[in-house]
Amino acid sequence: MSKIVAKYLIETAYSLEKAAEMMAGEQSSGTFIKVAGESDELRARFLAKIIEIDDLGEIDKPTLAGSKPQKSATNPIYRRGIVTLSWPLENVGVNLPNIISTVAGNLFELSPFSGLKLLNLELPQEFSAKYPGPQFGISGTQMLTSVNDRPVIGTIIKPSVGLSPEATAERVKVLIEAGLDFIKDDELMGDPPHSPFKKRVELVMRVINDFAERTGKKPMYAFNVSGDMDDMLHQHDIVWDKGGTCIMVSLNSVGVSGVVKLRAHSQLPIHGHRNGWGAMTRCEVLGMDYQPYQVIWRTAGIDHMHVNGLRNKFCEPDESVLSSIKSLLKPMFGGYQAMPVISSGQWAGQAVDTYKAIQTTNVMYLCGGGIVGHPNGIEAGVKSVLQAWQAALTNKSLEEMASNHLELKTALDFYG
Amino acid sequence: MSKIVAKYLIETAYSLEKAAEMMAGEQSSGTFIKVAGESDELRARFLAKIIEIDDLGEIDKPTLAGSKPQKSATNPIYRRGIVTLSWPLENVGVNLPNIISTVAGNLFELSPFSGLKLLNLELPQEFSAKYPGPQFGISGTQMLTSVNDRPVIGTIIKPSVGLSPEATAERVKVLIEAGLDFIKDDELMGDPPHSPFKKRVELVMRVINDFAERTGKKPMYAFNVSGDMDDMLHQHDIVWDKGGTCIMVSLNSVGVSGVVKLRAHSQLPIHGHRNGWGAMTRCEVLGMDYQPYQVIWRTAGIDHMHVNGLRNKFCEPDESVLSSIKSLLKPMFGGYQAMPVISSGQWAGQAVDTYKAIQTTNVMYLCGGGIVGHPNGIEAGVKSVLQAWQAALTNKSLEEMASNHLELKTALDFYG
Repeated sequence: MSKIVAKYLIETAYSLEKAAEMMAGEQSSGTFIKVAGESDELRARFLAKIIEIDDLGEIDKPTLAGSKPQKSATNPIYRRGIVTLSWPLENVGVNLPNIISTVAGNLFELSPFSGLKLLNLELPQEFSAKYPGPQFGISGTQMLTSVNDRPVIGTIIKPSVGLSPEATAERVKVLIEAGLDFIKDDELMGDPPHSPFKKRVELVMRVINDFAERTGKKPMYAFNVSGDMDDMLHQHDIVWDKGGTCIMVSLNSVGVSGVVKLRAHSQLPIHGHRNGWGAMTRCEVLGMDYQPYQVIWRTAGIDHMHVNGLRNKFCEPDESVLSSIKSLLKPMFGGYQAMPVISSGQWAGQAVDTYKAIQTTNVMYLCGGGIVGHPNGIEAGVKSVLQAWQAALTNKSLEEMASNHLELKTALDFYG
Repeated sequence: MSKIVAKYLIETAYSLEKAAEMMAGEQSSGTFIKVAGESDELRARFLAKIIEIDDLGEIDKPTLAGSKPQKSATNPIYRRGIVTLSWPLENVGVNLPNIISTVAGNLFELSPFSGLKLLNLELPQEFSAKYPGPQFGISGTQMLTSVNDRPVIGTIIKPSVGLSPEATAERVKVLIEAGLDFIKDDELMGDPPHSPFKKRVELVMRVINDFAERTGKKPMYAFNVSGDMDDMLHQHDIVWDKGGTCIMVSLNSVGVSGVVKLRAHSQLPIHGHRNGWGAMTRCEVLGMDYQPYQVIWRTAGIDHMHVNGLRNKFCEPDESVLSSIKSLLKPMFGGYQAMPVISSGQWAGQAVDTYKAIQTTNVMYLCGGGIVGHPNGIEAGVKSVLQAWQAALTNKSLEEMASNHLELKTALDFYG
C-alpha cells in the first residue's frame, strides 16, 4: 500500500506519544475523540500511523503563544521532538493541493502545540503518473542556454520597476553583450501599465534574437507571467511566439493549482520564484523547511527553484542554503530534475566555497551588484565570476586564479 | 493617483526610519542602494512611500534568528514599530498575485528584520473592475438556505475520511432531518479512491433534493473541489448539474490564481477553508494578520470565510477571532460581502457572547460535537443552538432561555 510520509518538529506540554496521536487523528479519520460512524475497521484502514518519535528534550517555556497544556497539568513541562507520520494514499488520492491540506493544514493551529514545523515530505510514485514534473529541468536548461560545463551565469533587471519596455530592452542588450547566459524580470515586474508585458517581450526578444543570430548563442530571459490563470497562459504564448525560452512565476502568490495548469500548457521552462518564502520558514518552530517545499513544487513541474546563496544578503544561514540545494538535487520519482537558482549577494567570491560544498555545476548562479557593479564594467563582472568557477573546477584558490586573471583580481579587491 | 497601502509590524536593530526606507526601496524601484538606470525622476514616480511610523519601543532581544544589525552597531538595540507604506498602483497594475509579491514577498527575509508581519492591506477601487468579488455573499447564501433572521447552522461530516459515498449520504440524511441548514466536507475529503467525488455528489444530492421536494427547504452542502484546475472546474459542474448549491476550496492549498479562475467559472457560492492559516499567522512577528488575508480572498471572490470561534479548540484567542469577523464584515469596494464561518469547538454556549460582540446574525455557525454530541440527539443539538441564538436576539441570558427550553438546558448541563 502506497504511503505519504511526513516528518515534523513539534513542541508540546503533552507527552510526545499523545501529541503524535492527536496529530495523526486530526489529520486522518477525524478528531482524536472517536465519533459516531467511525468503526474500528475504518480507523485501522484510514488512521494516520506514527512511524517514529524522537525526544529532543525539555525546553524552558513555550515558543508560540496560545497552546494549551493538558487540563491535569498544574506545572506543564514543554518539550520538543521529531515525529514521523504516514498516511495511506487512499485517504487523499493523487491530488497535490489536498496533500498540502493533509500534511500542512489545520495541524499548525492545534492547541497542544506551542510549535509545529513540517521538516520532510515523501510522496509515493503514483504522483508521477498524474504530475509529469519539470519539463526541461537541468539538462534542458543547459541545452537552451548552450552551457553545460559550468553554472548558468545570470542577473536580474534593476531597477525592479519603473523601466519602460524600451529601457528594459536596452539594458538586456548591454547585459547579453557582456556575456550573461540568463536574465530575469524582478518578481515585482509583471504586466504593469508602465511596462506592458507584450511590448516588453517583443522588444527584449528582438534584442535576444538578433544576438542569437549573430553569435549562435541565445541567452535565456525569464519573463514574469505571474497573474490570473488565463493571463498566464496567454503571456506564455506571447513568449513562445516571440522565440523566448523561459517564463517565471511567483510560486506562493500564484499557488499550486495555477502552477500545475501552467505547467501542463507550457512549452518553456518555468523559473520558480519563492518570494514570500521567508514568512513560511523563518520561525524556528512553525511553517516548513525547504525539503517539503521543493517536493511540492518539483511535483508541480517547476524547472528552476530559488535557494538563496552562501553569505547572502537575507537572513538565511549557509548551512540552510546548502541543505536546500542538496534536497533539490536528490532525485524524485527517478528524476524530476530542478535546477537550483543560487542568488542574493552573490559575486565571484562564493564560487569556490559553493562548489566545494555541492560538487556540481548544475546550478544557476545569479549576481546583481556582484556582476554589474564590477569596477571595470559588466563584461569584466561576468568574466570574474567565470574565472572564479574555473578556479573551483580546477581545484585552485580564488587568490591563485586571480594571480593571472585581472577581472577576478579586481573583483576580490573590490568586493572582498 | 491610486495607491496600494500596507501596514506592518517590524522588529529591527536599525532606526525605524532607516528600516522603513529599506522596505520601501526593496519592494519598489529596487534595492535601497541606487542602481544604474535609476534616475531621480524614476525614483520619485515609482518608489514606495513611507506614510507613517509608530515606535513601539525597545525589546530585550531579537525574536527571529538571522537578522543582521548595522555593521557600525557594537551593542545593537532592537525595537518594534508599526510602518505604513504605499505604492502607486502603476507599479504593479491590477494583478492580485503580483500585489501579494509586492506587499508580502521578499521583505520577510530582509536581513535588517528580526520580525516583520503584514497587519493591514488596502487595495484601490480599480481592483473591483477586474475582480468581481463574492458572487453570492451573505444575502445569496441566506437566500439559498432559506435562512435570514438567524445564523446558518451547520456541521462537518465526520469521520473526515473513510466514509463511502453511501455512508456519507446516510449521514447527510440524518443531519438534515435533524434540521441543519449547512453541511460541509472535511478539508481532508476531496476525490479519494474510497469516496469518488462524482458518486458522493450524486448520492448526497439525491438525499438533499428529496428533502427539498418534501419540505421546500434545501440545505446547503459544500463539496470540497480542491485540486488541479480542470478537475475543480469539472467538479463544480458536477455539483451544479446535480442541483448542489455550494463548493468548498482549501484556499492556501489551491492558491490565488486557481481560486480566481474557479470564481469566474462558478455558478455556486464558494466556501473558503483556511487550513494552513496557522503557519502564516501564529508567530507574533512573522507572516500576516487576518485583515490582509481576507482582503485578498474577498477580492478573489470567496463567499464564505472561516474565522474560528469564541473559546475554540485551536490556539487563537477570542480577541483575534472577533477582530477577524469585524474585518470581514467591513465593506470593501462598496460591498464584497463574505459570510464569516464561525467554527471549532462551538455549541450553544458561545451564541450569546458572540452576538454581543458582533451584533449580527449574518454568519455561519458550525458545530461538530456541539450538535451531534447532544445527549438527546442531533435534532436536540440543533434546537439547543437555535434556542441559544434566540436568547441572544431577545437579549436574554442562556440560563433564562434554558429555564423553559429543555434542549438548551440539557446542552448547558452537558457541555457547560
